[in-house]
Amino acid sequence: MGDINTPSITSNMTYCLAIKVTDGLIFASDSRTNAGVDYVTTYSKMHTFGWPGERQFVLLSAGNLATTQAVVNAVRRDLDDPKNKRHLKCFDHLFDAAEYVGEHCAKVQQKHAAMVQGNDINLEASFILGGEIKGRPPDIYLIYPQGNSIQASRETPYLQIGENKYGKPILDRVITTETSLDDAARCALVSLESTIRSNISVGPPLELLLYSSGSLEDGRCLTLDLDSPVYQSVQKHWDEGLKAAFSRLPQFDWE
Amino acid sequence: MGDINTPSITSNMTYCLAIKVTDGLIFASDSRTNAGVDYVTTYSKMHTFGWPGERQFVLLSAGNLATTQAVVNAVRRDLDDPKNKRHLKCFDHLFDAAEYVGEHCAKVQQKHAAMVQGNDINLEASFILGGEIKGRPPDIYLIYPQGNSIQASRETPYLQIGENKYGKPILDRVITTETSLDDAARCALVSLESTIRSNISVGPPLELLLYSSGSLEDGRCLTLDLDSPVYQSVQKHWDEGLKAAFSRLPQFDWE
Repeated sequence: MGDINTPSITSNMTYCLAIKVTDGLIFASDSRTNAGVDYVTTYSKMHTFGWPGERQFVLLSAGNLATTQAVVNAVRRDLDDPKNKRHLKCFDHLFDAAEYVGEHCAKVQQKHAAMVQGNDINLEASFILGGEIKGRPPDIYLIYPQGNSIQASRETPYLQIGENKYGKPILDRVITTETSLDDAARCALVSLESTIRSNISVGPPLELLLYSSGSLEDGRCLTLDLDSPVYQSVQKHWDEGLKAAFSRLPQFDWE
Repeated sequence: MGDINTPSITSNMTYCLAIKVTDGLIFASDSRTNAGVDYVTTYSKMHTFGWPGERQFVLLSAGNLATTQAVVNAVRRDLDDPKNKRHLKCFDHLFDAAEYVGEHCAKVQQKHAAMVQGNDINLEASFILGGEIKGRPPDIYLIYPQGNSIQASRETPYLQIGENKYGKPILDRVITTETSLDDAARCALVSLESTIRSNISVGPPLELLLYSSGSLEDGRCLTLDLDSPVYQSVQKHWDEGLKAAFSRLPQFDWE
């Protein structure tokens, strides 16, 4: 099996992740957008598309904001156009929906490619598309800027886009497909918290969505600021827990 | 204050770090060297130069192996040459020694620059130089591939080269200048362990050196393989501690 196109998913800073467990799906994202360090704004990176009882999609975005907005707008426009037959309501498989988002992503970049040549502008964007289509199991896909995609698996039950390193160790230690949905949501919060501490391009509010397998409903959605009681409590307990774990490490033989 | 030249220190994968606390200095490094994923070898990245009672230096290296070896050899050759007056024994300040290593680093790269033009070869290397010169406080410096350097500080008491992200969160949570030397050494091990888990370009044996402020002696040195009892015990306790910390996180209000 070949390499995944890794460099592309780490080049654009922001942090989104999705987790697939037996009980359902978790989606989490920050909301910071920046052009350099001197222009920082807030945009939601979590986009939902739902038809209760039929199908539910969550789309997380990272990378060039003009590209991600153009892709999300194209996805919405396709749904509004009665003459268009290729949209999120028509796919039988989540894989086809991921391919469709990837096509839009590639198309948007191609459209502007000539104009950015020779400039230090990166038009790339990556996405995570997850959800459930009635009759099929829920799933999550990571869509590369080039439009191709990979799927989560039993061995790799989570996918990340943007700044994926600081928040990865805790996912590797905790998450398996048997993890409960609430535990997976807590783990996503810890993963976001570790990333926010170290990368200033990742910032609040945090959005967290818990989707229960087979529900075909919107799911439970939280928007957390750094001073939200839920976030502060997780942060405080995690910090104390880590320090306690550190203080219980074995001594060297000379101590 | 301007930016530090960050991209350079993360481009070459390996992981070395140094910590400066009141009690002394910690140096830690992995030993994996690779050219792609299909050629993996083992080289120590920790080089010591000591004159008991007078001065002690530890040099950690990351990046192109030919460059790092050429720099270390040049530093040794300068010491052996009776006619040379510019070497590690002659400097009154650690800053001058860092500048000297930086000069060698830039020189070695310039020498081979013409030959690699147009090839996808990165000659860059970064170093951490730390130690103590009699009459001066101990210190640590990060030397960029360009030859310039930065120093640790009270607010930033550690320096990293190579794959610095996975192992950074625990340093930020635990290390202050008041941390004991043994705790700082434990924290360096945990930081290495988190990195080894996630980046296959970082591997054993791990080298760990504890230098006590004012001792002007070699310091205490450990070489640990993944099956060394010390490493296994730290790994086991840390993994259990993190899982325990996770299990004690607060519940959501709907649970």
